[in-house]
Amino acid sequence: MTANFFSQSRPIAFAGTDSRDPLAFRYYDKDRMVMGKRMEDHLRFSVAYWHSFTWPGGDPFGGETFNRPWMHGGDALGLAKQKAEVAFDMFRLLDVPFFAFHDVDVAPEGETLQQSIDNLKAITDIFEEKMANDRVRLLWGTANLFSHRRYMAGAATNPDPDVFAYACGQVKAALDATHRLNGENYVCWGGREGYETLLNTDMKQEMDQLGRFLSMLVDYKHKIGFAGPILIEPKPKEPTKHQYDFDVATVFGFLQKYDLLADVKMNIEQNHAILAGHSFDHEVKLAYARDLFGSLDINRGDDLLGWDTDQFAMDVKEITLVFHEMLQHGGFTTGGLNFDAKIRRQSIDPDDLLIAHVASMDVCARGLLAAEQMLADGALSQPLADRYAGWQDGEAKAMLAGDRTLETIADRALGLDPQPRSGRQEYLEGVVNRYV
Amino acid sequence: MTANFFSQSRPIAFAGTDSRDPLAFRYYDKDRMVMGKRMEDHLRFSVAYWHSFTWPGGDPFGGETFNRPWMHGGDALGLAKQKAEVAFDMFRLLDVPFFAFHDVDVAPEGETLQQSIDNLKAITDIFEEKMANDRVRLLWGTANLFSHRRYMAGAATNPDPDVFAYACGQVKAALDATHRLNGENYVCWGGREGYETLLNTDMKQEMDQLGRFLSMLVDYKHKIGFAGPILIEPKPKEPTKHQYDFDVATVFGFLQKYDLLADVKMNIEQNHAILAGHSFDHEVKLAYARDLFGSLDINRGDDLLGWDTDQFAMDVKEITLVFHEMLQHGGFTTGGLNFDAKIRRQSIDPDDLLIAHVASMDVCARGLLAAEQMLADGALSQPLADRYAGWQDGEAKAMLAGDRTLETIADRALGLDPQPRSGRQEYLEGVVNRYV
Amino acid sequence: MTANFFSQSRPIAFAGTDSRDPLAFRYYDKDRMVMGKRMEDHLRFSVAYWHSFTWPGGDPFGGETFNRPWMHGGDALGLAKQKAEVAFDMFRLLDVPFFAFHDVDVAPEGETLQQSIDNLKAITDIFEEKMANDRVRLLWGTANLFSHRRYMAGAATNPDPDVFAYACGQVKAALDATHRLNGENYVCWGGREGYETLLNTDMKQEMDQLGRFLSMLVDYKHKIGFAGPILIEPKPKEPTKHQYDFDVATVFGFLQKYDLLADVKMNIEQNHAILAGHSFDHEVKLAYARDLFGSLDINRGDDLLGWDTDQFAMDVKEITLVFHEMLQHGGFTTGGLNFDAKIRRQSIDPDDLLIAHVASMDVCARGLLAAEQMLADGALSQPLADRYAGWQDGEAKAMLAGDRTLETIADRALGLDPQPRSGRQEYLEGVVNRYV
Amino acid sequence: MTANFFSQSRPIAFAGTDSRDPLAFRYYDKDRMVMGKRMEDHLRFSVAYWHSFTWPGGDPFGGETFNRPWMHGGDALGLAKQKAEVAFDMFRLLDVPFFAFHDVDVAPEGETLQQSIDNLKAITDIFEEKMANDRVRLLWGTANLFSHRRYMAGAATNPDPDVFAYACGQVKAALDATHRLNGENYVCWGGREGYETLLNTDMKQEMDQLGRFLSMLVDYKHKIGFAGPILIEPKPKEPTKHQYDFDVATVFGFLQKYDLLADVKMNIEQNHAILAGHSFDHEVKLAYARDLFGSLDINRGDDLLGWDTDQFAMDVKEITLVFHEMLQHGGFTTGGLNFDAKIRRQSIDPDDLLIAHVASMDVCARGLLAAEQMLADGALSQPLADRYAGWQDGEAKAMLAGDRTLETIADRALGLDPQPRSGRQEYLEGVVNRYV
Repeated sequence: MTANFFSQSRPIAFAGTDSRDPLAFRYYDKDRMVMGKRMEDHLRFSVAYWHSFTWPGGDPFGGETFNRPWMHGGDALGLAKQKAEVAFDMFRLLDVPFFAFHDVDVAPEGETLQQSIDNLKAITDIFEEKMANDRVRLLWGTANLFSHRRYMAGAATNPDPDVFAYACGQVKAALDATHRLNGENYVCWGGREGYETLLNTDMKQEMDQLGRFLSMLVDYKHKIGFAGPILIEPKPKEPTKHQYDFDVATVFGFLQKYDLLADVKMNIEQNHAILAGHSFDHEVKLAYARDLFGSLDINRGDDLLGWDTDQFAMDVKEITLVFHEMLQHGGFTTGGLNFDAKIRRQSIDPDDLLIAHVASMDVCARGLLAAEQMLADGALSQPLADRYAGWQDGEAKAMLAGDRTLETIADRALGLDPQPRSGRQEYLEGVVNRYV
Repeated sequence: MTANFFSQSRPIAFAGTDSRDPLAFRYYDKDRMVMGKRMEDHLRFSVAYWHSFTWPGGDPFGGETFNRPWMHGGDALGLAKQKAEVAFDMFRLLDVPFFAFHDVDVAPEGETLQQSIDNLKAITDIFEEKMANDRVRLLWGTANLFSHRRYMAGAATNPDPDVFAYACGQVKAALDATHRLNGENYVCWGGREGYETLLNTDMKQEMDQLGRFLSMLVDYKHKIGFAGPILIEPKPKEPTKHQYDFDVATVFGFLQKYDLLADVKMNIEQNHAILAGHSFDHEVKLAYARDLFGSLDINRGDDLLGWDTDQFAMDVKEITLVFHEMLQHGGFTTGGLNFDAKIRRQSIDPDDLLIAHVASMDVCARGLLAAEQMLADGALSQPLADRYAGWQDGEAKAMLAGDRTLETIADRALGLDPQPRSGRQEYLEGVVNRYV
Repeated sequence: MTANFFSQSRPIAFAGTDSRDPLAFRYYDKDRMVMGKRMEDHLRFSVAYWHSFTWPGGDPFGGETFNRPWMHGGDALGLAKQKAEVAFDMFRLLDVPFFAFHDVDVAPEGETLQQSIDNLKAITDIFEEKMANDRVRLLWGTANLFSHRRYMAGAATNPDPDVFAYACGQVKAALDATHRLNGENYVCWGGREGYETLLNTDMKQEMDQLGRFLSMLVDYKHKIGFAGPILIEPKPKEPTKHQYDFDVATVFGFLQKYDLLADVKMNIEQNHAILAGHSFDHEVKLAYARDLFGSLDINRGDDLLGWDTDQFAMDVKEITLVFHEMLQHGGFTTGGLNFDAKIRRQSIDPDDLLIAHVASMDVCARGLLAAEQMLADGALSQPLADRYAGWQDGEAKAMLAGDRTLETIADRALGLDPQPRSGRQEYLEGVVNRYV
Repeated sequence: MTANFFSQSRPIAFAGTDSRDPLAFRYYDKDRMVMGKRMEDHLRFSVAYWHSFTWPGGDPFGGETFNRPWMHGGDALGLAKQKAEVAFDMFRLLDVPFFAFHDVDVAPEGETLQQSIDNLKAITDIFEEKMANDRVRLLWGTANLFSHRRYMAGAATNPDPDVFAYACGQVKAALDATHRLNGENYVCWGGREGYETLLNTDMKQEMDQLGRFLSMLVDYKHKIGFAGPILIEPKPKEPTKHQYDFDVATVFGFLQKYDLLADVKMNIEQNHAILAGHSFDHEVKLAYARDLFGSLDINRGDDLLGWDTDQFAMDVKEITLVFHEMLQHGGFTTGGLNFDAKIRRQSIDPDDLLIAHVASMDVCARGLLAAEQMLADGALSQPLADRYAGWQDGEAKAMLAGDRTLETIADRALGLDPQPRSGRQEYLEGVVNRYV
């Protein structure tokens, strides 16, 4: 039975920084006020259904290690319900306000599209009932358009238009379910929307297909009155050699091209960022600079490995810098911190699931508090303003506003001999270390 | 003296594939017709002034190895002239139709901007005269806005507006010189238009500065009647930790944002492509897909190293795939194959410069010929057309054209069970190997 | 049924370079003599059981794509026999002299170690009979000590000594089977002999365990009279974050430490080499330099991806350089070219398996022929000898032999002013291109 | 004049964690006792002469940014003395117990080897006098065998035996100077002891040369009574494509081969570690496991860049884990924490040099204190002991000791069914976060 799946049945509580209990929060104190908002409302934690309840612990060189009770047996829908029991129990234990899922995480695929949709509806009924009684809400839903072999060459970008059509059917059902459960966002991760080899790929054709697919999804969202944004989750590669939603900058170009800027935002993940050669911070800042910030998948990759390890985020400094940016823009609106993170496949004890979430939630809470203090002190913001102060000057403003030509500026430059000023990087690194 | 800088004084000639002479072409036969055009007009080779004549062979751990006669002595302009003698002699020996330069490659920087401009003009006079007598033309010019310490924090993206202004002065002079020498393009490589640390960087501000800078450059180009395109050369990093012109996809987003699509194209480099995580082929295909293809910097990086090695291109297969794409679009218009490639710092003999160019020109010629044959046979194009044939169907066309909604397609999908088809990657790889 | 699994039933034949048939050899002509030996005896091709017959086409983001008949159904041993039928049929069609397997590839794991051993014996009986009738021989066998969850923290390096013991049981049975089938080598790939995190790892303890394990294996090999070498297959990471057999240099240190140099050689793989930051060529040369060369797993990785893609080798130049080294040492003795290569998961047609092997065998044959010619011409070997000629001088020889001291040499050096000589890299790269 | 090179003339003092002064220590309190030793005696900080006083701020795309007074002018020896004044002043301001240098950092190269040696002697005279009055000592000296063009193809591994001889002359002089200044170690970094291309390289010959060179150096060290160890500093690449001292594991193999284990230890650097694909922690643990730990170059690389950035170490967690290992082995003996770290080239203010050292020294002090506490609590060591406890069992001990054979163990394994146990990675990561 899963009734006693975890070792404890009372929710994890805040116990202060002196606590050594791995099942207590040391920093995450949900009602603590941070810049005028409860910590819970800043962090908006979400548990990801797939990694926590659906992934068996396999990797390319080995099979299942977790042996969860709901992973074995004959009645697929029955097992799905059993899984849901444990999942909602964990939401309660962690006291998180949100969860997130793919259609196939929660309900088994059927023999036909219709059966799959029916299965999803059956589980949605159950979720709806549970959510009526619990406080947990849906951060976002999504459709898994990459695991089934029909999608091996892409979903929206498949060379076969029937696969494109099938994906339309699946994504519609997933958005319907998300809408019914009052999901705050809908996510598209283009896991196989890319290519394995350019030798068999018409890249332009495939990008046009993807643009069309998203446009129709946006139209449908408006039609049914789904208020949340569509979130694209950039990732450069894996499973494919190359994915079209490579990173925030690439998606920015894509959204402009297909006129989707108004309805689509970003769901940014640390591990995807570093696979693309960017820091987490960079992707977040760029998303804000382009008015595309939506939500975060909170995990970490291994800097020395070239694949998606999806480990639980454990680096306070990294999170601090992300929140430092976010707080300057008011923090999350519809988004949240979704734990798209896997316990290691050797972490086979049920409590490892709780411990990992608790440890990482504390890291996020520490980061939030550190960012709050840094902002209050102007620790980074003041030096930044000083560095660019010259651009507040009238002539500089005129240049940037487009009120000068290259020639007039070039002419003025003949009298200039600008002297470089220190970038003070080590000073600023030392400053950050004071807070983390 | 530089009169006998190289061991031979007659131009390199085509000698056929049996030749073992490293100073003869085995494949590059400039007048050979390929798809209706002379090989020379397809390949449009260009020698890069900087790597060949200005770089002393240093690296971060060691100094000059080349000891060229024009690198030592007191009279900067005199040495620049001496360098030009050797350079034009090499253009003649290689029998290349083009060369390319940065302002500071050809003329010494002065104490003031005015002096630098004057020096550039003095050298431009000399070049103009030489070019009147020689067949070599200018593929493109550019301004070096990254080597001088004033640019250590960027040129257009500098926190100091005076540096921005100074860069305007320098770039105007470089474009003027390029225009006067009938350059076919003007290139912008944003070597320090990026950041070392986000702790001291206002990314949005800096990108806006860069957008403004390019807009003014485009305006000026039109004003003076410079007909060629402005080419942006994407590179993800090095010298900075992160550069704004990361790759083709990123620049595509940037150009749309700042409304520059009509006037700016791409100058793509293999080594920059792989540093960004893309194949050379990918960047070229993407540029064509977005109508941004301009020119190529032809070199190669080392797949096992994380920095720009700028080695001479030596891989026939890689070049073949690039030309296979290019020939389908008619090949170069204003662009060319510019050798942004350095001989290794141990290749200290003058003739190593010639040998490297000859070997790599032959690789390009082989690639062109292989691509021609592949296209003639439909070796890749036919399987590609077959793979996407379904999208020629009426209903599929209607979906892609925007004549269907998600709901109608989803409804139709209920009756579908699309079966995957082989991607045939190994077959296609074997096909390519037949040609190279 | 599997009787007609492939589209053709006659063995692939040599058809010459003009052939366009993907099921014909263009270069591999097994009886052609190369430096006094038949091509087949040089290349010693081996088909790998696991990738070709056991891997279902899954990846971390998607499941089975291949749907082979023997992958579904109830009777594990029956399916294993069915699989063996297809496998031996493919050996015949490809006309390869060898195959290779893991214990669990060929026989299902049982509920107990004893059952697993019994299953392996049952299949060994079948293989023995088949091999009596066919020409195919066993290049090597190995035990899979990484897929089952008991091995999730390593086999020989497990913190639990019972797992170490279990691994002894499994490896003994695998070596027994290999011996019985006259395998020419026995391979150890330490897939989980490493760590996920140093936080829970006693590296010294684990390396000592691994040393002990191999020592016992060597003792047992001698005891049963197994004549072939034990081959260690280095790989730096994946599945673990860090594996103890990182690369050839690391294993060289390990073998010296545990006194295993006499009995253990290397099984080198291209994809593992590049994941460790080395070229394939480098690993082969180093293995020869340390007298450790054994055998090759012939595949390729993707230079832009950070995981083991195990693609079919398709680069003639890379193979040429490897054979250029090997031929100077007489080529393979017990080793061979084992296709540790997977068709892409989209290559779902049965014939894709044949086509991939044929295309890659041809690449190897081309490489062998190119290397033969290069050696005959002294194309690389002569310049190499010239470059180091100074070390043939008496005084230089004395220095290297240890007949001089630092002081005497330092004293002599006061009169020296050595001048650098060109490394001629581009010349040599051009030379190689003449042959491939 | 350099008298007032820095903004302050009194040494940096400890001011406690509340301080916001970038020129005060917040954690580094040199006399504070940590596990029975003064903090200063644990950390043994050393300033590196080259990065701080010799490097002008250039990179491959730009020249000098620092414009130090001693970098310009005519009298090389005079400038070297001026540089030494500032250097020793900085040692005093930072109150560090050690410094380190290359021969060419401190004294200009002459026209001949004899002149270079004379210059080094002249500076050694000055250093000797200064050190008699100051408390600073020499952690280590070394010879720069990579910057001059004569070494472009290696020093000990050069194809030209005269270069090998010249290197002997230079290294002897550098060791003599180190000995005279009572240096505690002598370091060999093989910056060009590797290759650019295997096409022109006889790897075995070159490794033998390197082995001979080190053997002679060891002999000479004994002869003159230099008591400290020779330290090899592994680095995988850069400047060369591939260096023979790739990483600790590689050097371990090398030292065994050339019988140098008794006299040579490791100087490990974080940035070199990650370029080789290892964590800093890994290299330190491996060095201890092989009894090769010597000293540390303390810096950090950028995880997203592929070259040596040599930034100041700023990550407390990383340093904590290194000290956690070191403290279990008693910490440094002859080694120390040498700041092989460069301020960024934009950090052009003299005080940036101080600020960077202070910030990083504080990070190291925090790491030391955190490690002390973790050890006192058994935070990691107890779970580790528990995990491997099974190996304390008699039968397990017998297996590891070599008292069992594969057969007897295999026989016993038939009765085993070992069950995996959680690796508890997330728990342990959470534990570490409690301390940093």
